Amino acid sequence: MSVSSRLQELGIVIPEVAKPLAAYLPAVQAGDLLFISGQLPRRNDEVVCPGRLGREVNMEQGMKAAELAAINCLAVLKAYIGEWESLLQIVKITGYIQCREDFDRQADVLNGASELLEKIFGAKGRHARAAVGVNSLPLNAACEIEMIARVK
Amino acid sequence: MSVSSRLQELGIVIPEVAKPLAAYLPAVQAGDLLFISGQLPRRNDEVVCPGRLGREVNMEQGMKAAELAAINCLAVLKAYIGEWESLLQIVKITGYIQCREDFDRQADVLNGASELLEKIFGAKGRHARAAVGVNSLPLNAACEIEMIARVK
Amino acid sequence: MSVSSRLQELGIVIPEVAKPLAAYLPAVQAGDLLFISGQLPRRNDEVVCPGRLGREVNMEQGMKAAELAAINCLAVLKAYIGEWESLLQIVKITGYIQCREDFDRQADVLNGASELLEKIFGAKGRHARAAVGVNSLPLNAACEIEMIARVK
Repeated sequence: MSVSSRLQELGIVIPEVAKPLAAYLPAVQAGDLLFISGQLPRRNDEVVCPGRLGREVNMEQGMKAAELAAINCLAVLKAYIGEWESLLQIVKITGYIQCREDFDRQADVLNGASELLEKIFGAKGRHARAAVGVNSLPLNAACEIEMIARVK
Repeated sequence: MSVSSRLQELGIVIPEVAKPLAAYLPAVQAGDLLFISGQLPRRNDEVVCPGRLGREVNMEQGMKAAELAAINCLAVLKAYIGEWESLLQIVKITGYIQCREDFDRQADVLNGASELLEKIFGAKGRHARAAVGVNSLPLNAACEIEMIARVK
Repeated sequence: MSVSSRLQELGIVIPEVAKPLAAYLPAVQAGDLLFISGQLPRRNDEVVCPGRLGREVNMEQGMKAAELAAINCLAVLKAYIGEWESLLQIVKITGYIQCREDFDRQADVLNGASELLEKIFGAKGRHARAAVGVNSLPLNAACEIEMIARVK
């Protein structure tokens, strides 16, 4: 099944690329590696479900936020490569989870992103990653995800 | 205009490379990617304006700290490549901002670095990036920036 | 001296690869770069010496934790490349140190990893790096290390 069909089946609409919050680019290519800037769980220019894991944001909301941040990475990717066929591999994601000090399930939160990538792309979506907790993120977002992809 | 002229015009002196705080290298090349170790806003071996955004460090000081950390990345880059002409592209920066939990303007702080890079290098200075907040950095620095550059 | 001999001399046993905590891969290769997922100081599926630098975890314990996280990165590397001879260079590590807000010796903690890599691999083990503090890590681990290596 094509990526477009899988996206449709999963009910995922790839949005417009979020406007960078500052003087930088959504993505820069070097060789066949595409470095995608850190994306927040924003929809229509608004952060969805702001706050901290372990406080205002529960696990389900956190996983949904990680999904949305990953989808925003894919929006940047798609805008850059044009056709999904030009994606060779999701290489690596780093997921920063905004959380209370006593929260230690960052890996579970980031699964929201990891599982989605595998559902959409299959083997091409399986990636290396790091999941870390931080005390604070831009716009009080619950998570931020950056991505490295290999592209044609 | 050459990079040297722009640096002069901007009043920026590229310093000596700061001594690594530990057993590692300032930069390692792999193919045409140069991975530059995380740099602090240090000048003459002293951290400038230590402390947290949202507490002792205000926005203007934070942006200046981000500028200085970026300049220290450039010091490593220049020492490695020798001539500015060997720089092909600033690919990516990651900016860790030491801040209070309720501070959410990390992107604005990191603009200090992003805007400077564009001023100095033009299109070659435009990069992908991630801006995250952290509770603590080495030597109580207000920020730390790591960089990936593409070089000849 | 071969890497295997040095490991033996240092009394280091490279463990089985820790089971990923989630839906991702221990490592993904792109060109000759191998991106290794963030590793915790786990032994036999248990986090060794959990807690924060500056509170429950002292400097010596923190450095040991960084060593162990680095060894777990090497476990992933070895499982991927098969023979140590296929390692060309440890390119970069990022060390996230779980710590109190007033702790500022992240660089010293990460030296546990950096010095070990140099002892094992000599010049091939000398790397770029970033050391940052964070308020929280998966499973309450004292540190997490991710690695980029250049391989044949």
